[in-house]
Amino acid sequence: MKIGLITIGAELLNGARTDTNASWIGQNVIASGGSVEWHMTVNDDKKSIVNALDSVPISIDGVLCTGGLGPTHDDITPTVLYDYFGAKPKFDESYWELLSEKFAARGRAIPESNRNQAMRPDTGEVIPNPVGSARGLHFTNDRYDCFAMPGVPSEMKAMMQNTILPWIASKSDVKHHIVVLRTTGIMESALYEKIESIISNYPIVNIAFLPRFTGVDLRISSTDADLIEEMVSQIAPIIKKYHFGGEGVELENAVGRLLVQSGKTIATAESCTGGLIGDRFTNVSGSSAYYKGGIVAYSNEVKHNILGVKNKTLNAYGAVSEETALEMAIGVRRLLKSNIGLSTTGIAGPTGGTDEKPVGLIYVGLSYEGGNKAFKFIFTPSRLTNKRMTSQAALNITRLFLLDVS
Amino acid sequence: MKIGLITIGAELLNGARTDTNASWIGQNVIASGGSVEWHMTVNDDKKSIVNALDSVPISIDGVLCTGGLGPTHDDITPTVLYDYFGAKPKFDESYWELLSEKFAARGRAIPESNRNQAMRPDTGEVIPNPVGSARGLHFTNDRYDCFAMPGVPSEMKAMMQNTILPWIASKSDVKHHIVVLRTTGIMESALYEKIESIISNYPIVNIAFLPRFTGVDLRISSTDADLIEEMVSQIAPIIKKYHFGGEGVELENAVGRLLVQSGKTIATAESCTGGLIGDRFTNVSGSSAYYKGGIVAYSNEVKHNILGVKNKTLNAYGAVSEETALEMAIGVRRLLKSNIGLSTTGIAGPTGGTDEKPVGLIYVGLSYEGGNKAFKFIFTPSRLTNKRMTSQAALNITRLFLLDVS
Repeated sequence: MKIGLITIGAELLNGARTDTNASWIGQNVIASGGSVEWHMTVNDDKKSIVNALDSVPISIDGVLCTGGLGPTHDDITPTVLYDYFGAKPKFDESYWELLSEKFAARGRAIPESNRNQAMRPDTGEVIPNPVGSARGLHFTNDRYDCFAMPGVPSEMKAMMQNTILPWIASKSDVKHHIVVLRTTGIMESALYEKIESIISNYPIVNIAFLPRFTGVDLRISSTDADLIEEMVSQIAPIIKKYHFGGEGVELENAVGRLLVQSGKTIATAESCTGGLIGDRFTNVSGSSAYYKGGIVAYSNEVKHNILGVKNKTLNAYGAVSEETALEMAIGVRRLLKSNIGLSTTGIAGPTGGTDEKPVGLIYVGLSYEGGNKAFKFIFTPSRLTNKRMTSQAALNITRLFLLDVS
Repeated sequence: MKIGLITIGAELLNGARTDTNASWIGQNVIASGGSVEWHMTVNDDKKSIVNALDSVPISIDGVLCTGGLGPTHDDITPTVLYDYFGAKPKFDESYWELLSEKFAARGRAIPESNRNQAMRPDTGEVIPNPVGSARGLHFTNDRYDCFAMPGVPSEMKAMMQNTILPWIASKSDVKHHIVVLRTTGIMESALYEKIESIISNYPIVNIAFLPRFTGVDLRISSTDADLIEEMVSQIAPIIKKYHFGGEGVELENAVGRLLVQSGKTIATAESCTGGLIGDRFTNVSGSSAYYKGGIVAYSNEVKHNILGVKNKTLNAYGAVSEETALEMAIGVRRLLKSNIGLSTTGIAGPTGGTDEKPVGLIYVGLSYEGGNKAFKFIFTPSRLTNKRMTSQAALNITRLFLLDVS
């Protein structure tokens, strides 16, 4: 079933609020066999709302509206909807009594201004609100069914789960299936070239590339679950080096799982990332089993005094060098008595670069029983992007080491 | 100037991505005299994009499109735009050379699939991309100007700031002025009560409260800059304890500025925040002047061996206690020879809580010449929220200490 979405409110257009309702709805209709194919955001005025209702593409079967039905809200959205669908409001005595009782239970008299919440359409339905007092509205015309909900996320979600998602499921024959493959360490274009020939063998499977600074997510969807499985079984071996997990998995989760499996512990010595890798390790509940902690060695003083990087090394090669990265990793491994030591040092920018050592030059060091390795990267001019890309590269180096892939 | 927004991509409709570009654009056009009045999100296919371009309301003067300009197969947006605006693509040899050089500088050959990024329209303009390789497109028809940008936020923002916002400003007579006051350490309702009487004296100034887990932003807007200034001059002294900066200022920027002013250095000893405070300090360019580094003391072993927290303290009071927080702050200040030591220890959750020490129980320790203090908080059941709120509380404690406000 094809779903259209109308989100109503100036705060969405002027950016005072990010429209998280839209992405929640987009995700959640899929399992019921729906897919959002069109979305319009408009101001809370009659002309804009009518324009949106008129603009719904002909392919759409169900329209979900959010916003403009809250308890503190004026009447514009419901009034426009009643008019548009040719319905008349009736006062719903029994709901008014229920509301009055709710207020009385809290020791308050119900304000007259709440009367509009007790209105219901003469043709059309109300949608129960399990977590609030403003009910939703359900109208039908010859083109689509229209469901109007409050913009408050908890109320919208409750109406979706109790009423609208079951309605979508009852009207849908086909279910959509989705598999997400998260990758890192490869650019979108290179990833595409690697799997292009497989993709072209599955024209009815949809595959989307979602690039981020830290990697590319592959989102594979189809109504045929077997076909997805078949395709994934062909893609997975080719991208093994890059593929670290599925939907909702962060690289720190994947590395954590490998550390638990291998029974190894890790410690970090961070210069340019400033604590970001430790932050990411400790985002995972249970990480105390393998993450011992670390040293944020932001000054040379700390690199030398705490981690034991030799002054000779700092003077001869500089703080941003393969040699320093290695001594940092070795030092933190020894100091914190971990199996693995992981270090970062680099020029995060935006200032501090030279011809020889430009902004974005980063070294990652890895120390383990039996060896030490350093890795060199040149990232971007942006400080925050460099920090994030460095943390991702360091975690991925650890993942490949634990997997014994190179 | 009235702006319409078209965001393109199945990932926005199916909820794989939240549309943060839309809210950023909504916020940022205002200062240039624009306001987003209409927004449509559509799939990356010809019919949907054409439908969106056709649907732009007559009142709109400028249309901004994001998404669909990357190097992969599903990017049909440029083709549709060329067609729609009656332009033909020309291969831009000099830009292709530039791109090839960029890839070569990173030791990579440029993939053939990047060729479409070197196309430019025969009628219409390209929008320079200061941070990426895909340029934007600018077309004009008899109804509106249309600007197409990549969906990658950093690239979109760079194009907006360098090219499109100046264009909007050049076409706008009325400027909207916005002042943002960022606060932390006070809830929305309490903040409202403090400034309610001032707000009511300025009915034509718009004030929005934007609450986050880490604080509340006040967004004050009007076409009359003097009136905003007058209102802010009355609000500022009342909220001094909570107000740390304006638009785009993070708490770590404010604390960094105070550290520079006072000539003091700081070091961190992080347990439950795992490196997040160090990460935030080092997000600020120039932070090496005052941030010496820190210890991520995630295990008791590190708290004792490196920071010198007494085993007696750990055994008698536990790792999550005022006493441990104090010894961590004292220890890191001594070890890293900084003027200030800042520590965190707590139960981030979601597991590990007890009746006596529930999830969300956090202590922050502060050590400085002449004294040591500990602060107790009880936050939420959510691990990531607790880490973020703890880092915010610790930074704010440092801010108030440096301001000598309590």
